[in-house]
Amino acid sequence: MAKIVYVHTGGVGTPERSATPIYLATTAACMDVEVGIYFTVNGPTLLKKGVPETLIVPKYDGKGAPLRRFIDQAMEMGVKFYVCQPSLDLHGLTKDDLIDGVEMIGGAAFNDMALEADQVISF
Amino acid sequence: MAKIVYVHTGGVGTPERSATPIYLATTAACMDVEVGIYFTVNGPTLLKKGVPETLIVPKYDGKGAPLRRFIDQAMEMGVKFYVCQPSLDLHGLTKDDLIDGVEMIGGAAFNDMALEADQVISF
Amino acid sequence: MAKIVYVHTGGVGTPERSATPIYLATTAACMDVEVGIYFTVNGPTLLKKGVPETLIVPKYDGKGAPLRRFIDQAMEMGVKFYVCQPSLDLHGLTKDDLIDGVEMIGGAAFNDMALEADQVISF
Repeated sequence: MAKIVYVHTGGVGTPERSATPIYLATTAACMDVEVGIYFTVNGPTLLKKGVPETLIVPKYDGKGAPLRRFIDQAMEMGVKFYVCQPSLDLHGLTKDDLIDGVEMIGGAAFNDMALEADQVISF
Repeated sequence: MAKIVYVHTGGVGTPERSATPIYLATTAACMDVEVGIYFTVNGPTLLKKGVPETLIVPKYDGKGAPLRRFIDQAMEMGVKFYVCQPSLDLHGLTKDDLIDGVEMIGGAAFNDMALEADQVISF
Repeated sequence: MAKIVYVHTGGVGTPERSATPIYLATTAACMDVEVGIYFTVNGPTLLKKGVPETLIVPKYDGKGAPLRRFIDQAMEMGVKFYVCQPSLDLHGLTKDDLIDGVEMIGGAAFNDMALEADQVISF
């Protein structure tokens, strides 16, 4: 079974970057690929409770969807959500501040996952 | 034959990010590597008709070259240009708005291409 | 021996992006992985003499550490630092402007290194 790890570094300050890696991850999971997304740098801010419901993925016509929709589709397809522990620290967040279904891992576990993957694709 | 897929997420708002993946792709094509660049997130805005001619890749001495020069060199070396269909939608662009020589693909085709590549390198 | 190349595109304008790839590289080197970091786009500005000592990696509580600490840990673990020659030109920098221990390479050498690596992980 093929494996892809997406890395998501963009946070609440760049909403136009928020959905693409999650959308691609969902697409890959539909293709029977084992998929994880690693939220690091500013990425964990997207997973703070309350954010996915209110952060709108911008669209030129003003009819963007909330990020929550992309996250729900990904989780329903079995995409795994991981957050980088030191990145949480940078933002003063703890695991309890995050939405359900997110696993916290450190740098070594991420590197292991990256080496086991067929591709690591960063955003 | 080795294959590299470059991912280009930067758009007209970050001109200092516009040329590097295209330059590296050209270099790889010169090394007999099969190369594609996938423009996603803000990347498709770089390929809007009229943009490459007027967007100057900034240089400290004010003598930067237009992005068009980098694109032409890449296309002459056989680098393939792909745009992400949902990203076009986000910016209100259609394929007709883009310069010639760009192919539109969806997320599944991108993931397939990524899995077939030796490396995926994102910018 | 596994090999990972990290790509670092963020510069002095995005201090919150400065440490993560260096930290992950150090972690990988501790895992007996052969590791290099390729500083390109804005990345080389982080390596200008005087910058690592004064650039503080921001932390929510205002107690961030200087980037130098992350760089020293990486170099002590054997992480190789590479800068992209054309990116130096963009910023008007030369190798002499950079801290010790950094090697300058061109696009072809980077592509070779990327193709030889098990993963290329961009930031």
